[in-house]
Amino acid sequence: MIAVDWGTSSLRLYRLDVAGMVLERRRSDDGVLASVGRFGEVLARGIDGWDDAVIILCGMVGGRGGWQEVPYLDCPAGIAELADGMQRIHPPGFDGRALWLMPGLRDLMSDSVPDVMRGEETQLAALLGNLAVGSHLVCLPGTHSKWVGVRDGRIQRIATAMTGELYAVLRQHSILGRLMPVEDGRFDAFAFDTGLRRSEQAGGMLHHLFGVRTAGLFQQVAEAALPSYLSGLLIGHELRASGAFSQKPRPAQVHLVGNDRLLASYAHALTSLGIGVQRHPEDLAAHGLYALWSRRTATRSIPESV
Amino acid sequence: MIAVDWGTSSLRLYRLDVAGMVLERRRSDDGVLASVGRFGEVLARGIDGWDDAVIILCGMVGGRGGWQEVPYLDCPAGIAELADGMQRIHPPGFDGRALWLMPGLRDLMSDSVPDVMRGEETQLAALLGNLAVGSHLVCLPGTHSKWVGVRDGRIQRIATAMTGELYAVLRQHSILGRLMPVEDGRFDAFAFDTGLRRSEQAGGMLHHLFGVRTAGLFQQVAEAALPSYLSGLLIGHELRASGAFSQKPRPAQVHLVGNDRLLASYAHALTSLGIGVQRHPEDLAAHGLYALWSRRTATRSIPESV
Repeated sequence: MIAVDWGTSSLRLYRLDVAGMVLERRRSDDGVLASVGRFGEVLARGIDGWDDAVIILCGMVGGRGGWQEVPYLDCPAGIAELADGMQRIHPPGFDGRALWLMPGLRDLMSDSVPDVMRGEETQLAALLGNLAVGSHLVCLPGTHSKWVGVRDGRIQRIATAMTGELYAVLRQHSILGRLMPVEDGRFDAFAFDTGLRRSEQAGGMLHHLFGVRTAGLFQQVAEAALPSYLSGLLIGHELRASGAFSQKPRPAQVHLVGNDRLLASYAHALTSLGIGVQRHPEDLAAHGLYALWSRRTATRSIPESV
Repeated sequence: MIAVDWGTSSLRLYRLDVAGMVLERRRSDDGVLASVGRFGEVLARGIDGWDDAVIILCGMVGGRGGWQEVPYLDCPAGIAELADGMQRIHPPGFDGRALWLMPGLRDLMSDSVPDVMRGEETQLAALLGNLAVGSHLVCLPGTHSKWVGVRDGRIQRIATAMTGELYAVLRQHSILGRLMPVEDGRFDAFAFDTGLRRSEQAGGMLHHLFGVRTAGLFQQVAEAALPSYLSGLLIGHELRASGAFSQKPRPAQVHLVGNDRLLASYAHALTSLGIGVQRHPEDLAAHGLYALWSRRTATRSIPESV
């Protein structure tokens, strides 16, 4: 089968064997935003040379503004609900193949404002088997960091923090960016820790943000290290307001899913705040899609024809 | 005398009589950023036809990147220190006139990160006479909102919140802006209050910001009302972390200085949180400069020659 993780800004394609091992992987910047109006064409080019009959896609490709919108499923949801929620689509140009889109998940119950995910539920599907007993907290850091509560193998709760996007817009468009070097440069662990500690002080985030400027102007933090300081400050605010601190009982550890660079920052921050971490690689989506497809074919008396 | 409030993005000029009454006022968008390299020329055009001998300037014109940098004075500072801290400059083209720049203020003691103001100290100078006894809290909302603690007529404490700038960059450059109408449109008091109440819930500001998107997507808040919702959310976070809540004893009221539109939002928010307000007009700078010049000439045995 072919597993496709098609997000807002990137496209990841995996060819899997019948046991779910990744035979080949490809990546491009043809994310959903760059592919509007030509999804079939972009996908056909992406899987060129792969003749597998089943293609399963997750991520924003199934959202509003994507190829075709698949409605959100409601939390709580586990492997069974996610596998059941797949929708087959029939775009032209894919005769002899079966294309399936994953639904996203929404959480209408945990908070007064709904929260959602689309793509991350598939990464989580690869983990849910290992989280089948008890309560667990998973964090998928990124542009929009997802904090996910899992109980007895089912996704119960979603809380998103806009950390990565706020970092980017402040860096590129605010007065804070003007003091900083154009490129982020080398990660400065000392400045990151200084920002992390700043986040626990009084005054609130809006005040702490202005302090990034004065910390630079008064040379408390070198200008080259200000990006790391800002990153530590924002991640600190994210962590302190997250389930890692508010959940009762406090989780003994947080499962982290993401790329090495981001995970290093989050693991360091959580550890220094006294919380254990367990890291998982970013390309869980391929394994999640395999697990979901296996579940779907195993529980249907007649597997959907191709 | 001529009083000049020359900030980052605007230039305000006032002609005052000997009693400090405003005879004439002018305003332009030739702020400091737009005037670099030609401050003398911009000022000469601004005061064209006014032959007063004394010109006093406050705001970013005296900051780094301004006409000439005047070092910050340290808090605590009152009328006496501010009047003493004026610096005369001698640019070409102003023969027969005396030009003075106001210093800014810095607060190195109240927090682990320094805080500063440049221009607001002059607005405050117009109020300090009325705040001569006891402790007072003044808020000057804006791009960078200033929260100022005054005790016995002297400025003790400065805390800046980046509220207005964060609103603008999120509005223009983040995913939140994409859901909103291009123009802010009519202020929506109900949505503002909804955002204000949201700010007191658990989850933290980074989570609440993502919720602006889902509140729009799930039609909890109409898209046209999302700017007011975001404004209420950010102002709520600013107020709850400000001295209005953290200062002990809690101040009975907050003095608000600024333009009518902003003051209406802040006054409404503070009142609904149970805190009284007293409003002051935005053009206090002219009165402050008059008060400072009067003080300076009254306390020098020989007024500086023109």
